[in-house]
Amino acid sequence: MSSCSSQQLVAVDESRRFMIDCFMAVKVPEENARAQADLLVAADYRGHFSHGMNRLEMYINDLAINSTNGAAEPQVLKETPATAWVDGCNGLGAVVGNYCMDLAIKKAKTVGVGWVCAKGSNHYGMAGWYAMRAMKQGLVGMSMTNTSPLMAPTGAKEAALGTNPLSLGAPASNSDQFLLDMATTAVAVGKIEIQNRKGAPLPDGWAQDPNGNVTNDAKLGFATGCLMPLGGSELTSGYKGYGLGAMVDILSGVMAGAKYSTQVRKWTHAGANSAADLGQVFIAVDPNCFAPEFEERMTDFNSRLRNTTPTDPKKPVLLAGDKEKNNMKAVDAAGGIQYLENQLKTCAALAEKLKIKPLSFN
Amino acid sequence: MSSCSSQQLVAVDESRRFMIDCFMAVKVPEENARAQADLLVAADYRGHFSHGMNRLEMYINDLAINSTNGAAEPQVLKETPATAWVDGCNGLGAVVGNYCMDLAIKKAKTVGVGWVCAKGSNHYGMAGWYAMRAMKQGLVGMSMTNTSPLMAPTGAKEAALGTNPLSLGAPASNSDQFLLDMATTAVAVGKIEIQNRKGAPLPDGWAQDPNGNVTNDAKLGFATGCLMPLGGSELTSGYKGYGLGAMVDILSGVMAGAKYSTQVRKWTHAGANSAADLGQVFIAVDPNCFAPEFEERMTDFNSRLRNTTPTDPKKPVLLAGDKEKNNMKAVDAAGGIQYLENQLKTCAALAEKLKIKPLSFN
Repeated sequence: MSSCSSQQLVAVDESRRFMIDCFMAVKVPEENARAQADLLVAADYRGHFSHGMNRLEMYINDLAINSTNGAAEPQVLKETPATAWVDGCNGLGAVVGNYCMDLAIKKAKTVGVGWVCAKGSNHYGMAGWYAMRAMKQGLVGMSMTNTSPLMAPTGAKEAALGTNPLSLGAPASNSDQFLLDMATTAVAVGKIEIQNRKGAPLPDGWAQDPNGNVTNDAKLGFATGCLMPLGGSELTSGYKGYGLGAMVDILSGVMAGAKYSTQVRKWTHAGANSAADLGQVFIAVDPNCFAPEFEERMTDFNSRLRNTTPTDPKKPVLLAGDKEKNNMKAVDAAGGIQYLENQLKTCAALAEKLKIKPLSFN
Repeated sequence: MSSCSSQQLVAVDESRRFMIDCFMAVKVPEENARAQADLLVAADYRGHFSHGMNRLEMYINDLAINSTNGAAEPQVLKETPATAWVDGCNGLGAVVGNYCMDLAIKKAKTVGVGWVCAKGSNHYGMAGWYAMRAMKQGLVGMSMTNTSPLMAPTGAKEAALGTNPLSLGAPASNSDQFLLDMATTAVAVGKIEIQNRKGAPLPDGWAQDPNGNVTNDAKLGFATGCLMPLGGSELTSGYKGYGLGAMVDILSGVMAGAKYSTQVRKWTHAGANSAADLGQVFIAVDPNCFAPEFEERMTDFNSRLRNTTPTDPKKPVLLAGDKEKNNMKAVDAAGGIQYLENQLKTCAALAEKLKIKPLSFN
C-alpha cells in the first residue's frame, strides 16, 4: 500500500457492493450475489488478487450466457450421518461451496466428521474460504476442487490435471489459526504471466516447453500451458506434487461423479458455452472428538514454528495464513484495497455495460 | 535384480519368517510379531528398503530396552459413530496402525467415514500400508504420521517438523489402484546419505547448511539434518511443502494429543530411552456414499494419466504406486528380494545375538 496512489484505494465494503450490483445486474438473486461477492472480496482483502475481483468479468460472462445458473440451489442426492453427495446444479461456486460446507459442519457437530462431495459445481474461488467457514464454528475444515487441465504429469508433455488446490484450516486459541491454501502446481499460471510481462526468465521447476522440458522462457511457458507440479522436475520429487494433484482430483472430481482430469473444459475470459461440472469436496472435523484442548495445543504448535531461528534475522518465520493476515492489516491501515489500473478499467467498462453505479474510491 | 548376485536373493516369505523370529526373540507376542513383519517385508517387496528390514535393528533395540511395548494393545479413549481417539499404549507401529485403520474401516462401512486418531504410537512404517488395508475393503484410505524433527520451515535454519508422510489409496476396477505414499520433505534423509556415500553433490532444493542456505554438499547436508520441504526454496514454493508437513502434524500429533513438532524425540539406531508418543491419523471413506461406479471411473482416470504423451517415448508416464507394482513383479520374477550386503551382515549379527535361525537364501 504505497500512499502516493491512495486515490485508487477501494474500501472493502465498496468492492463488495460493486460486485453484488454486477451479479444482480445479470439476474443473480441477491442472496447468491452476496455469497459470491463475499468470497471474491475476501481474496482481494487477503492479497490474492488472482482469486478476487480479477475473476468477476469471467463469472459475469458465464452468467450472461447461462453457462452458470446464478439462481441454482444445490440438491442433496444421497446422505448418511457423516456424508452427503450434492448436485451443485451448475450454481455459482460460492453458493455450492457454502451449502456443502455448512452441511459438513452440521454433520461434524453430530457425528464428529462431515464429508460432502459436490458435482455440477463451478470455480469456487479460494479453497481456504470453506476451511475458514468451518474454523468459525471451532472445527477443522478442509476443501479441495479440481480445475481445468494445466499441469503435466511427471514425464509427460501434455496437461492432464488442473492446479487442483487444497486447503486446511485449524483454529487456535485467541483468534489465532493455521490456514493452508495452496495449488498443487509449483506456481499459479498468474505468476508465469507476470514474469512474461516483466520480460523476466522463469526459475527452473515452474513450467515446461512443448517438448516436455523445463523452460526458463516465460513467453514460451505461458503459451505452452503446462505448469510443473509442486516439486518441479523428477529429480526434485515433482512426482509428489503430481500425486497430490491427482489426489485432489480423486477426492473431488472422481468421487463426486463430476468431470475429472482431461474431461474438464478449458475456461476462458470470454465465458464457456458448456457447464463446467467441477467436482469439490468439503470436510469438517470436530477436534473435540479427540484430545481435549485442541486450540491451546494449536497455539503452542504455531508458536514453535513461528519461533524457529530465521535464516535472515530481519525476516521472521511465517505460518500458513500469516502473510494474508498481514495483508488484511495493511488494507485496514491504508483504508482500502489498491487494485491494478487494468482491473479498474475493467470495472468501469462493466459498470457501463451493466448500467450500475461505478466503483468509487476513498 | 541383477542375476549375477542371485545367490543373495531372499524369498519374501523367508524375510518375513526371519523378522517374526527376531521380534518373538525379544518377547513380542506372535500376533504382533507377524503384524510388524508383514509391514516391513511389504516395504522391501515394493522396493522401499528404507522402510523395511533396514529398520528391524532399531525396532529390536527399542523393544529390548522397553522403550516400545511389544505386547501392548491399543485402547479406545473416546468414540462417536464416525470417529475414535485411540491410545496406542506405546505399542508397535503396525499393531497400533492396523487396529486404528480397522476401526476406521468399520465406521466407514456404517456411516460412510471413519476418522481415527492415535496418540502413544511408534514409527509405523510406510504410510501406504494403512491405505492399502482400506482399499482391500473397497474403501478409499488415508493415513498420516508425524516423525522426528528433520525439516526446516521456509526461512528457518533449524528443523521443527518431521518428514511427515501422507498416503492416499483409491481402488480401481480389475485390481488396479492409485496409491500415493510420500514424505512432505523434498527427499528422504536416506537419499542424502546415498549421495554422501557416492561422494556426489546434492541437487538444489534437497537440504540446508547450518546457516539455512541451500547446500549442494552432501556431507554437510547430512550432518546438518535440515531437509528442505517439498518444493525446495521459497522461489520454487517450498512453503507449500512446509505447509503440508505442518498439516500432517496438525491432523496427527496435535489432534491426537501426542507429541508434535519439536516435542518429538530424535530417533537413533541405538534405540531411544523414552516412549516416542507419535501421533497418527487413519481415515477410511466409502465411495459408495457418493456417485456410483467409483472404481470404474478410477480406472478411466488412471488411464488418462498413464496415457498422456511421454516426454521420452521410452519412458511411459507412471501413476502413484506403479513403480512399486513393477518392483513386486521383478521380485517375483527373480524369486526373491536382493538385500544390500550391509543389511545381510546386520541380519547375521541379529541371528547370532537373538539365537534364531539365520536368514537363508534362494
